[in-house]
Amino acid sequence: MNDSLRSIATIMKDINSVLIYPHINMDGDALGSCSALCLALRSLGKKAYVMISEPVPKNLDFLECGCTTTDDSVIEDVELSLMLDCNSSNRIVGREAAFERGRLKGCIDHHAVGVTDIKFDFFRSEPKSAATGEIIYQLIRNLGVEINLDIANCLFAAITTDTGNFQHNNTTKRSHDIVGHFYQVAGFDSKAISALIYDRQSKEALMMEGKILSALEFHADGKVAVGAVTQALLTECHCTMDEAEGMIQRIMSIDGVEVGALFKETTDNIRVSLRGKYYANVAAVATVFGGGGHIKAAGCTFNTPLATAKEQLIPELVKAVKK
Amino acid sequence: MNDSLRSIATIMKDINSVLIYPHINMDGDALGSCSALCLALRSLGKKAYVMISEPVPKNLDFLECGCTTTDDSVIEDVELSLMLDCNSSNRIVGREAAFERGRLKGCIDHHAVGVTDIKFDFFRSEPKSAATGEIIYQLIRNLGVEINLDIANCLFAAITTDTGNFQHNNTTKRSHDIVGHFYQVAGFDSKAISALIYDRQSKEALMMEGKILSALEFHADGKVAVGAVTQALLTECHCTMDEAEGMIQRIMSIDGVEVGALFKETTDNIRVSLRGKYYANVAAVATVFGGGGHIKAAGCTFNTPLATAKEQLIPELVKAVKK
Repeated sequence: MNDSLRSIATIMKDINSVLIYPHINMDGDALGSCSALCLALRSLGKKAYVMISEPVPKNLDFLECGCTTTDDSVIEDVELSLMLDCNSSNRIVGREAAFERGRLKGCIDHHAVGVTDIKFDFFRSEPKSAATGEIIYQLIRNLGVEINLDIANCLFAAITTDTGNFQHNNTTKRSHDIVGHFYQVAGFDSKAISALIYDRQSKEALMMEGKILSALEFHADGKVAVGAVTQALLTECHCTMDEAEGMIQRIMSIDGVEVGALFKETTDNIRVSLRGKYYANVAAVATVFGGGGHIKAAGCTFNTPLATAKEQLIPELVKAVKK
Repeated sequence: MNDSLRSIATIMKDINSVLIYPHINMDGDALGSCSALCLALRSLGKKAYVMISEPVPKNLDFLECGCTTTDDSVIEDVELSLMLDCNSSNRIVGREAAFERGRLKGCIDHHAVGVTDIKFDFFRSEPKSAATGEIIYQLIRNLGVEINLDIANCLFAAITTDTGNFQHNNTTKRSHDIVGHFYQVAGFDSKAISALIYDRQSKEALMMEGKILSALEFHADGKVAVGAVTQALLTECHCTMDEAEGMIQRIMSIDGVEVGALFKETTDNIRVSLRGKYYANVAAVATVFGGGGHIKAAGCTFNTPLATAKEQLIPELVKAVKK
């Protein structure tokens, strides 16, 4: 099943209260899409909130727009629970019970759909959309809502982060067409939004970056580069994990590196970000370990110590760079 | 005088041999624009080359496209000398005599025009274009030439580098409209071009980056950040100056930094890149020292030792961050 945005808009027009759910470890696309839709629904007189259960990363704070809440009781009668940028309950960990409160349940996502454990009343998946923000843009237009400055800012953040600033090969003509529209919104300033997202790195984070880069491991004649962010390093540098977000791009910027991996040691597990440059399929590697994603940007999780996770993953990465 | 692209296209259609000149210290917009136009002219059966006098930066090597030459005698009778992305003879240092050989002289640029010392037969300046590549795109269409893959790659490189990957506030709806077109060209892959430009940093350059960042100076309560690339540092790190190109962006990514300056000690002089984040006008600062550029991205040159250049410039930068 893949419902049309027109039919989803028709359903949503008839609904008065919505809780919108971004995935855990929220990123610019998840939060930007949720807040943009929340603002659009509010402009139609509906009660709407974005339901989160973790702190918003500092560089995305401007995407809250007064929409986020950690308390689902903010709406008494939830007519719709809507999941954005994800499609299964393990991506809204800690909020599953709240999500179940929705009389209707919906999902709009651009990730490839695995086995979802939720019975959605409506569902739209567009794996060819570079960002969920692109789909939300279309939905907002189907709702008949004008793109105002706040919505444009949220959707610009969503699309620019998920496309790697229009460089990744998920970017399409449509990505540029949609973003082009934002420049017609009074007051829109791509540089100001971009500076909020990218240009608030702390000096501490810069120091941590230096340490991560100088400790990189290389395999397969330099085609595989592996970095790690441990809890010990975060403590030493007075940093939080979200300050290491850009590190995988730095790893990929190295000449000759085809596959990059960044191991992130959280308090619960080891999360790994994987990237491919020209030909390697890192989604296939992630799948081996129960993860997933896109061909050139994927991820997986290990419930083992860091050393064990590396021992298991690195040989698969080495295989992936052998053409 | 500001000739229309239509009239310039009319002139160019009647001409059989063209030497195209990018500015010294060529960047992606200069070389990408020159090669794109060169390829377009060749597809019309004309003799065309891009005349350079310095090595092409490694990350831009794919923009040569068989177009570049360091020998202007490659064309015997130069019907047109065409300057792109610059508008005065001090920007084509070492090639002024060759430029004079053109029976006609033209200029197409997106920089604000200062006092030019050349008598151009045609001239087009579009300071509102984010990149000269945007103007060349229009010119190529006026010439009736189809945008093929090589041309799309050159113009994508031109526009994406000069807009800071569509983040700088010179970016417009038109920037996105033009780039959107490239996705309709068979084989176009933004990621592949982007990887060629940005993802071939050497490990040595990464090391140098660490050294530059750890030696940054801050002034005006951290609002002004100043970095330097000296000849000694280049020697120590086995790097060339073009490998430090991205450093000014790294400086600007620091929280609280409003103005960034990168002093580049060449064998001849001190070149300074200046950037503003939200409100500071660095073009005005550059002008004080005989330089120029855009409000948020400008540059100037000092014929003094590094320490003297810093002493002169830093107080002006401190003034520029006082609102």
